[in-house]
Amino acid sequence: MTGSRCSGRGFEQVAGNGLLHRRLFLTKTASLAGAAGLGFMTARPAAAQAQLDVPEWTKVPGAPMSGYGSPSPHEAHVQRAFFSRPGTVGSGASQTPLEQLEGIITPSGLHFERHHNGIPAIDPGRHRLVIHGLVARPLMFDLESLARYPLISRIQFLECSGNGRANDAPEPPQVPVSQIHGLVSCSDWTGVPLSVLLDEAGVEPEARWIVAEGADSAAMNRSVPMAKALDDAMIALYQNGERLRPDNGYPMRLFLPGYEGNMSIKWLRRIEVTAEPMMTREETSKYTDLLPDGRALQFTFQMGVKSVITSPSGGLEMQGPGLYQISGIAWTGAGRIRRVEVSADGGQTWAEAALTDPLLPISLTRFRMPWRWDGGPAVLQSRAIDETGAVQPTRAALHARLGTRFDYHHNAIQSWLVAADGAVSNIYA
Amino acid sequence: MTGSRCSGRGFEQVAGNGLLHRRLFLTKTASLAGAAGLGFMTARPAAAQAQLDVPEWTKVPGAPMSGYGSPSPHEAHVQRAFFSRPGTVGSGASQTPLEQLEGIITPSGLHFERHHNGIPAIDPGRHRLVIHGLVARPLMFDLESLARYPLISRIQFLECSGNGRANDAPEPPQVPVSQIHGLVSCSDWTGVPLSVLLDEAGVEPEARWIVAEGADSAAMNRSVPMAKALDDAMIALYQNGERLRPDNGYPMRLFLPGYEGNMSIKWLRRIEVTAEPMMTREETSKYTDLLPDGRALQFTFQMGVKSVITSPSGGLEMQGPGLYQISGIAWTGAGRIRRVEVSADGGQTWAEAALTDPLLPISLTRFRMPWRWDGGPAVLQSRAIDETGAVQPTRAALHARLGTRFDYHHNAIQSWLVAADGAVSNIYA
Repeated sequence: MTGSRCSGRGFEQVAGNGLLHRRLFLTKTASLAGAAGLGFMTARPAAAQAQLDVPEWTKVPGAPMSGYGSPSPHEAHVQRAFFSRPGTVGSGASQTPLEQLEGIITPSGLHFERHHNGIPAIDPGRHRLVIHGLVARPLMFDLESLARYPLISRIQFLECSGNGRANDAPEPPQVPVSQIHGLVSCSDWTGVPLSVLLDEAGVEPEARWIVAEGADSAAMNRSVPMAKALDDAMIALYQNGERLRPDNGYPMRLFLPGYEGNMSIKWLRRIEVTAEPMMTREETSKYTDLLPDGRALQFTFQMGVKSVITSPSGGLEMQGPGLYQISGIAWTGAGRIRRVEVSADGGQTWAEAALTDPLLPISLTRFRMPWRWDGGPAVLQSRAIDETGAVQPTRAALHARLGTRFDYHHNAIQSWLVAADGAVSNIYA
Repeated sequence: MTGSRCSGRGFEQVAGNGLLHRRLFLTKTASLAGAAGLGFMTARPAAAQAQLDVPEWTKVPGAPMSGYGSPSPHEAHVQRAFFSRPGTVGSGASQTPLEQLEGIITPSGLHFERHHNGIPAIDPGRHRLVIHGLVARPLMFDLESLARYPLISRIQFLECSGNGRANDAPEPPQVPVSQIHGLVSCSDWTGVPLSVLLDEAGVEPEARWIVAEGADSAAMNRSVPMAKALDDAMIALYQNGERLRPDNGYPMRLFLPGYEGNMSIKWLRRIEVTAEPMMTREETSKYTDLLPDGRALQFTFQMGVKSVITSPSGGLEMQGPGLYQISGIAWTGAGRIRRVEVSADGGQTWAEAALTDPLLPISLTRFRMPWRWDGGPAVLQSRAIDETGAVQPTRAALHARLGTRFDYHHNAIQSWLVAADGAVSNIYA
């Protein structure tokens, strides 16, 4: 590959059906010089400078500043899709509109939700957190006292363990990517390391678990191994700079990096230190993985390595043959994403996508890939590999291992069919 | 320092007036074990497990999911402070409430604003961007066509060049830190490299500058060196995952990493490629730095190395003697922050603060430092050093170099006086 080819039309095909070398998206902007020759070009010639009319909004003074800004009314369609279980108002989930977003930070207003009995209207001045059980000194914290403790910050994803489950339907659901995989979001979280609080309470030698409980009316609770509690668990107080939103646990939530989202108990009110797990409803009846032989896997905490192409994705329309960027997100509960591979021919051939800095542990990673669509049918897939070497499985491989009755930890490869007419749809491939 | 001292009360004093070793905040959570012995502890003993009453919000079903979430009503006081110039509605600025925030991402609703004639109500379907002037092919882009180009993402700060100017008043203003330094914010920006568009237009050999113009009714414009335009300039379309907010240039803005904020033209409608700078009002009358001899520095694009302690800060109250965390932000237009030093004795002695990962170029960096306040008067300062070796100057040093009539690039060290009664105030030290 010579320099001159780099700066011209020479982005060579690297895998079947039009995938081009990722260098177009590599970090140094300089590598993008020459992209103009590639065929992304959709601008129209501006015949004369005067062709740019002065629109009416340039002719009048604009709107004033505000205390707290909002999206444009033209973006009002960018919303979480949500549903409640029949007979309830607040038991259900809402999904991050992945197909509308770019980068890695999820705006807090669009962070996915999963509530077991709605969002409690907590008065932060009256909220308390108690740590008790197998400790030398049971302790009670209010929000003000907790905020005096040392704070840490991390940009990390949170994923509902049921994310991706829609693809277990016999026929592939023809819905936007967000309604299949939108139970994952990523924020800049700040809070108090739980280890500091447990250290103060004085954990007894026989303590091996904690049980965390929320102040919602489901009293949502989960058992967490002490090793995780002492490692990287956080009592989160801030999300993307500001205090937690009510739908994310205001005024405080547990945050367990890389673990299934339901364990990061929102509206945290109680941590009981125990010798054994509590065997709550949410770790026996629910949030276990039913196997083909009728037994179930329990305490499958860590979320697997996963990726999904968000553009193009189901329901979107191609704009005719030509050069496109494939864009998507990858993540793993195990640490950093090492590599993402993309296929345009249904997995026959793969090529490496460009990963956008920063590559942070237990965070979303944005990947991008140039693709010259020739107008024929194509099946787009992405496959993530994490720093432990774990590889995102195909749907068939996942089903071979777990059957088809498990409800959680669906990290299978997503396939999008691009039809000759430009329609993009969900396909099991 | 032995291991046993690390895990106990042994966080030694490292500079005058109670500054302790930063290891309390270093990345590995494990280093926080032992913090319990230090005196952060403000929890109350929970005499019995039954002491935790069940509040009324736990007894009733909570609120349902929503399409787009909002902060808690209990956080309604977390707002941008804003002002308009007399006789205008939209010419002025609003400031990010730094003293209320943590981490490095600024929520988009709290990103600072600086408008020259308000926020235009742009119909994105009718907005156009024209590139013309010294180019082979003048081009016109609509939003849809622009979004087809290769995208890049970066977490970067934006700072108004006038930030910090309030501290030029003869007496130190007794206002929150946000009303002195709140014209800086940090977001995850995604957009099209300007180099790609200029490459497509075909820049003529004699072209050395571009002039960027907004669609606001001030037609805000600035000249930008071609080298910057081809290096890391971006046409930003997304901020923190979603489309730009109207107050940040919806549907598209120029983004010039590390340069004074006014040059990152919002509501971008026109880029004219030129041989010379345009010498617009905003780079002759305004946004120049008046020197003591009556001459002015022009085209001082890059924002200097700066830091500010946001907690404790002016107007806040200490809660009595004891252990505190000092928290603040540092940034530089030159790249990465290398080090932040903190003083509790008005600059007589300094110690190194802990920097929170990730340490990204041209981004905010959060720093933290443990401090044992003995209840006596103290003067807190922070001093940032960037990867080029540039050191944040004292107020006296800045004034010795630039006089006191310059309006921009105020990156002097901020001093906070902690009085014996716990009141924190602004002081020139």
